[in-house]
Amino acid sequence: MTQWSAQDIVTQLTDRGLTIATAESLTAGMLSSAIADVPGASAVLQGGVVAYNNTIKHRILGVSADTLAARGAVDAETAKQMAAGVRQRFNADLGISTTGVAGPDPVEGKAVGIVFIALTTPANTIAKLLRFDGTRQHIRTATVAASLQLVAEWLDQTLSTS
Amino acid sequence: MTQWSAQDIVTQLTDRGLTIATAESLTAGMLSSAIADVPGASAVLQGGVVAYNNTIKHRILGVSADTLAARGAVDAETAKQMAAGVRQRFNADLGISTTGVAGPDPVEGKAVGIVFIALTTPANTIAKLLRFDGTRQHIRTATVAASLQLVAEWLDQTLSTS
Repeated sequence: MTQWSAQDIVTQLTDRGLTIATAESLTAGMLSSAIADVPGASAVLQGGVVAYNNTIKHRILGVSADTLAARGAVDAETAKQMAAGVRQRFNADLGISTTGVAGPDPVEGKAVGIVFIALTTPANTIAKLLRFDGTRQHIRTATVAASLQLVAEWLDQTLSTS
Repeated sequence: MTQWSAQDIVTQLTDRGLTIATAESLTAGMLSSAIADVPGASAVLQGGVVAYNNTIKHRILGVSADTLAARGAVDAETAKQMAAGVRQRFNADLGISTTGVAGPDPVEGKAVGIVFIALTTPANTIAKLLRFDGTRQHIRTATVAASLQLVAEWLDQTLSTS
């Protein structure tokens, strides 16, 4: 499939009457902002949470304290619970999350450039491991693009099977 | 005073052991992202909420339903409750909020370019009315700059009086 823009995603979500909420760690608002850049985004974007530390991931998004203790902030299961948590709390159809190491330093033993994103849909939650090189800014920008692409892939699949 | 960069603000907050949380409507994550752009921001940025509709402003940030019904989303009192709400929920020293009309269309009778920002400190909450011309993107970018400046002014004042 082709790369979808934020505009394409907002249009598709609007046409299908679906809403979305974001749970961001390393991207810290870049993903929600990319969606909100599109005029008319308020029809689909419920909002989101920037969870920049583990206390917030647990308290505001409902990520299990056990998961955070055992697996850390940069982890597929943590990403899944962030996506599911924001979807539930913001009463959205889709929840999308980002967590990873933007640098300059490693976090909890995870190398710079390791990123997990997750998408919760009405059917299930999927997570994806990404590995990026480059600057802090590049890693965050590439994570936003990959997150939009994950939503696009789901929209594309559900379009072709519905 | 001179214009402070996000880097200056993160440095000042770090030096003083202060944390910050954001509550964003029209900027939708651009403000938290601007703070997180600075390496080491995790020492001060607790996180934030993107509250893109009134339900989220009420349910996640605790803005009073009466205030939203009587005064609307784009209002000084709403901005104050957003800042105070995120400060309390994220257990931060400072809460900063943005709400306004980025366009292309007016919202609740408020013209494009009308923006309120608010800052809650340990001492009090102040709100500021801003009026911008230009594109959706310009209004949002200018709001981020004005919000950082509001934090800078408070830091500057408390520096000179402490």
